[in-house]
Amino acid sequence: MAAKLSFSDLWSDVCAVRDRSPLVHSITNLVVINFNANVLLAAGASPVMAHAHEEVADMVGIAQALVLNIGTLDPYWIESMQLALRAAAKRGIPVVLDPVGAGATKYRNEAIEQLLMTSLPTVVRGNGSEIMSVAGSAAQTRGVDSSAAATDALGAAQSLVQRTQGVVCVSGQIDHILDASHRWAQLSNGHAWMTRITGVGCSATALIGAFCAVQPDAWRATVAAMALLGVVGEVAAEKVIARGKGVGSLQMALLDELQLLDQGTFEQRLKLEVAQW
Amino acid sequence: MAAKLSFSDLWSDVCAVRDRSPLVHSITNLVVINFNANVLLAAGASPVMAHAHEEVADMVGIAQALVLNIGTLDPYWIESMQLALRAAAKRGIPVVLDPVGAGATKYRNEAIEQLLMTSLPTVVRGNGSEIMSVAGSAAQTRGVDSSAAATDALGAAQSLVQRTQGVVCVSGQIDHILDASHRWAQLSNGHAWMTRITGVGCSATALIGAFCAVQPDAWRATVAAMALLGVVGEVAAEKVIARGKGVGSLQMALLDELQLLDQGTFEQRLKLEVAQW
Amino acid sequence: MAAKLSFSDLWSDVCAVRDRSPLVHSITNLVVINFNANVLLAAGASPVMAHAHEEVADMVGIAQALVLNIGTLDPYWIESMQLALRAAAKRGIPVVLDPVGAGATKYRNEAIEQLLMTSLPTVVRGNGSEIMSVAGSAAQTRGVDSSAAATDALGAAQSLVQRTQGVVCVSGQIDHILDASHRWAQLSNGHAWMTRITGVGCSATALIGAFCAVQPDAWRATVAAMALLGVVGEVAAEKVIARGKGVGSLQMALLDELQLLDQGTFEQRLKLEVAQW
Repeated sequence: MAAKLSFSDLWSDVCAVRDRSPLVHSITNLVVINFNANVLLAAGASPVMAHAHEEVADMVGIAQALVLNIGTLDPYWIESMQLALRAAAKRGIPVVLDPVGAGATKYRNEAIEQLLMTSLPTVVRGNGSEIMSVAGSAAQTRGVDSSAAATDALGAAQSLVQRTQGVVCVSGQIDHILDASHRWAQLSNGHAWMTRITGVGCSATALIGAFCAVQPDAWRATVAAMALLGVVGEVAAEKVIARGKGVGSLQMALLDELQLLDQGTFEQRLKLEVAQW
Repeated sequence: MAAKLSFSDLWSDVCAVRDRSPLVHSITNLVVINFNANVLLAAGASPVMAHAHEEVADMVGIAQALVLNIGTLDPYWIESMQLALRAAAKRGIPVVLDPVGAGATKYRNEAIEQLLMTSLPTVVRGNGSEIMSVAGSAAQTRGVDSSAAATDALGAAQSLVQRTQGVVCVSGQIDHILDASHRWAQLSNGHAWMTRITGVGCSATALIGAFCAVQPDAWRATVAAMALLGVVGEVAAEKVIARGKGVGSLQMALLDELQLLDQGTFEQRLKLEVAQW
Repeated sequence: MAAKLSFSDLWSDVCAVRDRSPLVHSITNLVVINFNANVLLAAGASPVMAHAHEEVADMVGIAQALVLNIGTLDPYWIESMQLALRAAAKRGIPVVLDPVGAGATKYRNEAIEQLLMTSLPTVVRGNGSEIMSVAGSAAQTRGVDSSAAATDALGAAQSLVQRTQGVVCVSGQIDHILDASHRWAQLSNGHAWMTRITGVGCSATALIGAFCAVQPDAWRATVAAMALLGVVGEVAAEKVIARGKGVGSLQMALLDELQLLDQGTFEQRLKLEVAQW
């Protein structure tokens, strides 16, 4: 029997983020750190970024979720992430990992393995290449963009779910969200221009953190976060294109829609299929 | 007798920043570093960001003001700030400190204390919780957002003024600017959406640096900077809302208005009360 | 005989970046890292930012160009740049250096010299003061803005070309692009407001990297990149001003135009003169 997810349940998670404004601690990359903070704020969450070894555990101590993103990793930041992971595991708050550029370099792969060995994340979100690399498949990542289609990565996502016993989200033209109870959601919203703005994928990860903070079912939380971003991206891109604008304007339009999207538009636009894998 | 501040005096400080384009050296956090640079540029100032121990003192040597912001502090950056502080004290240029997230972690509190012990800043700007924490009150900060109302922090601001013998600005719905001669300005411009963009508070601090660089009365400079940002935020938010846009568009509208605001709008909108404390 | 460059040749380079989406590895400064990534994406290139000593060489190994920008340098990042430089030299991919703030501090000058000693870059781009400083002239830089006119720096640019045997671009109201075969292009597009957004110069450098990745003649690639940015800036500023907006909106309009500019506008607007020096 397929799991069920009503659109209004997902919308209630959007509202929970807006109403409860969860504090999300992000240790993220230098490229997207500002945009991710603004994405969290626009969605109604409360971002905090801190990486000093002396304080990461304390900061995790007041956060409702932890988001780790290895985009511009170095040894100091990886150690920050490990300290934060341990503190999050101890407190039992959800952890979302974005293995940016997995497969691009040996060091990146080793760092991801180190993080997974430290504590298994609640959710891993990446594009096809990244998930294949993390799962041990032989994808060679081309920088931080995806060279593998999300669908090619489904097998890898399943292996990774089996390892983490958590949620894995492979994002792409279709987003796949799988968990260890074999639930499988497919979302087909979004717009191609979203890949022309740096940090939209990373922002998806940040949003998943915010949703996991208010919705204990991490699979549903991940679906809700990805659903929101997909619909928002679609609506924002259409508005921007209608005004003859481009990807610069889209960046701000994404934030506008994250803040202002209403239930009617969300439910009317949402393209979700739920099955078992 | 209450201090006096005419609106046209404050506007003349806005013009001085635009005309003289002071070089403001910021050692700030990774989240807001880009936005702060753009805020300074939009207001007419000239930003420089540098943190290498090998050069901070030299960079302070060509700057007209120093701005320190501990948002994403770590031991290396705190040492950079100390080196810069000493150089600024030696040269006698104004220093503005933003104790972001004060009270959130022990390390953060210790770092702030270290900075205060190195050299007392000309101006400290923070939200209610942060100022209470820096002043030694028992506020528990929730990340980097303010959980204490600015008015609750007035007593703390007064203690802090007594310690620094400088200016303290507690920002919130009403901004309070106090100094050691017991001058007390209250500004009630601004818009709630300004808290939905990361780094607006930090940008206030950066602007105070620019204004202190051109206006030797640091209390008046702080009032002028906060007045400008408050009016700009209000005007920008109204325009954005009228166009059906949100906090993404507001980010850019803030920069537009910082550049383009005219004297008429400034003086017509400004809500300032001056008293003694 | 003067070198020849047809407008349609330059436009074909713009198209090559859009079509081939070269992977550009940037080790750049913390202020502009997000904007530069978005500039590269808007122009059609694929950015990757990585600085860990453990992986820079590997990342260079999958990139088509390397861009180095010392804006917020420190010893760790300078070593990253040296490791990347060596890897790029070994692979023979183009390297573009942006000596931000050259002349502002002794440390900055030494770091630039260290980089030049490690391996000579294909292209150096800076403003007048920076190029004069790198060439060993006695310009005292005022922070990261240019205090010397681009034309004053022509002699310095020529000396620097003789040292690097590569391309030197001095940007300003008129951009000068010189190479070791004595080709000299002058571009006079652009808009004064472009200097009111942080990282536009740095983005020029990033774009040069993308163009060098698809066009083996580095002088022509540099001219094409600077031509694109100049025309884009001019068109974007005119549109923004016509709508009564300012430098905040210009930031996004620049990205929009980088993505959407068409050949007709490019060729109609372009102001290029080519000569021998």
